[in-house]
Amino acid sequence: MGEKIRIGIVGYGNLGRGVALAVPQNPDMELVGIFTRRQPGDIEAPDPSTPVLSFDSLDDGRDDVDVLILCGGSKDDLPEQGPTLAARFNTVDSFDTHARIPEYFAAVDAPARAAGRTALISTGWDPGMFSLNRVYGEALLPEGETYTFWGKGLSQGHSDAVRRVPGVAAGVQYTVPSEEAIDAVRSGRHPELSTREKHRRECYVVLEEGADADAVKEAIVTMPHYFADYDTEVHFISSEELRRDHGAMPHGGFVIRSGTTGGSHAQVVEYRLQLESNPEFTASVLVAYARAVHRLNAEGQVGAKTVFDVPPGLLSPKSPDELRAELL
Amino acid sequence: MGEKIRIGIVGYGNLGRGVALAVPQNPDMELVGIFTRRQPGDIEAPDPSTPVLSFDSLDDGRDDVDVLILCGGSKDDLPEQGPTLAARFNTVDSFDTHARIPEYFAAVDAPARAAGRTALISTGWDPGMFSLNRVYGEALLPEGETYTFWGKGLSQGHSDAVRRVPGVAAGVQYTVPSEEAIDAVRSGRHPELSTREKHRRECYVVLEEGADADAVKEAIVTMPHYFADYDTEVHFISSEELRRDHGAMPHGGFVIRSGTTGGSHAQVVEYRLQLESNPEFTASVLVAYARAVHRLNAEGQVGAKTVFDVPPGLLSPKSPDELRAELL
Repeated sequence: MGEKIRIGIVGYGNLGRGVALAVPQNPDMELVGIFTRRQPGDIEAPDPSTPVLSFDSLDDGRDDVDVLILCGGSKDDLPEQGPTLAARFNTVDSFDTHARIPEYFAAVDAPARAAGRTALISTGWDPGMFSLNRVYGEALLPEGETYTFWGKGLSQGHSDAVRRVPGVAAGVQYTVPSEEAIDAVRSGRHPELSTREKHRRECYVVLEEGADADAVKEAIVTMPHYFADYDTEVHFISSEELRRDHGAMPHGGFVIRSGTTGGSHAQVVEYRLQLESNPEFTASVLVAYARAVHRLNAEGQVGAKTVFDVPPGLLSPKSPDELRAELL
Repeated sequence: MGEKIRIGIVGYGNLGRGVALAVPQNPDMELVGIFTRRQPGDIEAPDPSTPVLSFDSLDDGRDDVDVLILCGGSKDDLPEQGPTLAARFNTVDSFDTHARIPEYFAAVDAPARAAGRTALISTGWDPGMFSLNRVYGEALLPEGETYTFWGKGLSQGHSDAVRRVPGVAAGVQYTVPSEEAIDAVRSGRHPELSTREKHRRECYVVLEEGADADAVKEAIVTMPHYFADYDTEVHFISSEELRRDHGAMPHGGFVIRSGTTGGSHAQVVEYRLQLESNPEFTASVLVAYARAVHRLNAEGQVGAKTVFDVPPGLLSPKSPDELRAELL
């Protein structure tokens, strides 16, 4: 093995912590620092020897970082940090506001290209591995339908919506895919599925003292965009139960391509994730793509990239010869 | 859409026929000819206007073919045709003798590189899509195990072995994965599974007149390499039943990566194929990779390639902009 790939982490929430845990699982990488807008002293890295530094210390550039993994949010952090940091570093991020990806791609591409840097945007599992499987599915079975199901998993956006309802002290929301819908798709039929038929929603809510349970439930299940189009269950629990039973961040889902080949034969391709920890899996994907970004940059492939642009072999620490001999 | 990608087919068995059926499903492609060692007049293409030509007519080279899809067998056809044709054409093949892939890669790489041609070897679903999922799985979850299950499906090699047993007039063999083993793997445990625990084998046999059924059964279930390590069922049927119930070529299987991320969370990634027609699906994969080969060659990426070298977006007829906007 040659020199290790030197990784920096920007932003230290659940995702940043996942990256700090994932890097040591990859013997060809090392974590050179965590960069934060918080007080560096407030952050405890999994390995206490990891330097924790201020975000501003990135301003001067650094020649000891091969790839920065950006772990901030898509709403406020990445639109600003992505373009700025891509002018000075190779980067990987998980920008996941699907509708704004083309705009974000352009904003990162120009500075990265001008600086000879490589910036892989919007990876993780959706966008990321699910996107890849949508592309493979369509390309292999041009006559067919693609279905995406999410869950069972904790949805951050929907949990936030629940917590904004007056009378709610705390709560979480799980997205649950319909087994019947999945079985219908797997059967090779091409069902038309309504929003309500694909997923249902389960909320676990801690009420504020004196709040009206019926009113809270009504406010949740009728909330437009978030719950009104779904069958939603609301369970009231104690804050003790919330802490004990709902602290994990499981997630997952399915991308299924159901197609018909030229001789009228049904062909079904299914990609499925079952994740005990959503942020740790997302972090592992970012770390594998950091390896690819380091190699793409060494080959002179600069500018913004997505998972669609990355030859799969570049994700692996194994050489092309090893991959062909062992895994083809 | 620009000019269509012009495809030629070499070899016209089940796979070649699958390619002839798959090309018309891709509006950016056209089939310019089928090249065969048989009498061209003996072959009926799905579209009667497709030219059927002798294999030898390829000797002079042709400037009306962008990519040749090689549909011959891995034992006798491809080891000779692959290197020879890669010196004159861009090619795609499904060479599937896993142990000989490194040698075959080298044999194709040199002539293709010398001639400025691109030759994608060993695609289909295994090797091919299953190989890709082994690489993605390992790279995303470096601490874990990869499990491959095949079936339920018709195995050509095992069917041939059954048919060589004295007293057997005809027959087929299905490989059946164990549901219990798959469930154990999906659960996130990392079971050690013996050959017998992963798959069982089902044979449907037509006896020759006067053959001893017990002796035939014993010869099959004790056959080394093919059946001795498995639980094997042998069913005797009439030639009428064989024709009626066992004429299709279903197949499929699972690649499951079960890993643990840094915070000790179990993460399971599963890729599953359910194919009513194995040759038609394999053909569809070859056709999508022909599109990628055409583009790689236009970019100057010459020599032998595998699925590990191909950016996923190159498989799709959509542009990078469209892919980012619609599928990321």
